[in-house]
Amino acid sequence: MSALADPTRRAILARLSQGAATVNELAEPFDISLPSISRHLKVLEGAGLISRGRNAQWRPCKLETAPLERVDDWLQAYRKFWTGSFDRMDAYLAELTKAPEGGSKQ
Amino acid sequence: MSALADPTRRAILARLSQGAATVNELAEPFDISLPSISRHLKVLEGAGLISRGRNAQWRPCKLETAPLERVDDWLQAYRKFWTGSFDRMDAYLAELTKAPEGGSKQ
Repeated sequence: MSALADPTRRAILARLSQGAATVNELAEPFDISLPSISRHLKVLEGAGLISRGRNAQWRPCKLETAPLERVDDWLQAYRKFWTGSFDRMDAYLAELTKAPEGGSKQ
Repeated sequence: MSALADPTRRAILARLSQGAATVNELAEPFDISLPSISRHLKVLEGAGLISRGRNAQWRPCKLETAPLERVDDWLQAYRKFWTGSFDRMDAYLAELTKAPEGGSKQ
């Protein structure tokens, strides 16, 4: 997943999540050269995170989400570690706000 | 995230999700040397995915989920791409199984 380690590449993916775009469109918000953007696109394409159109002149880039979906599936087994504490807090808050039934009074 | 690109390292994380373990315990299920396991642990430790105890002899390894949680947060923006189609299918199935109201009969 080193393709995702670079902030420019993550920004490119975020842009493509809004729809397909050409290299020129993708380069616009960045203060870096077109060849540099092309190198980032090659890394993303190599990781299967984007695909490029066949039209030789424009070759629009398109987001491919299958690898991200696999990461998301894999994370499933670990999600309990950061959602569990909120579930426990929810249960605790529910307990706190419950009307008292008998027992000690204060 | 190249720390996660290796299947042995992912298996080590899966083991640690069950609880802390020593290097020997982690090495047991794998047909690879202790030094090799130690190298994998160094990569995981460098990525912040595990931490190691201070006890010089045992130094038990412990899962640290903060980096995975950040990935999970980041994926949030992309999740619509693979959950959306199921939501639409649910809506379609709900539509199909709804009792017909007027309109064409067959």
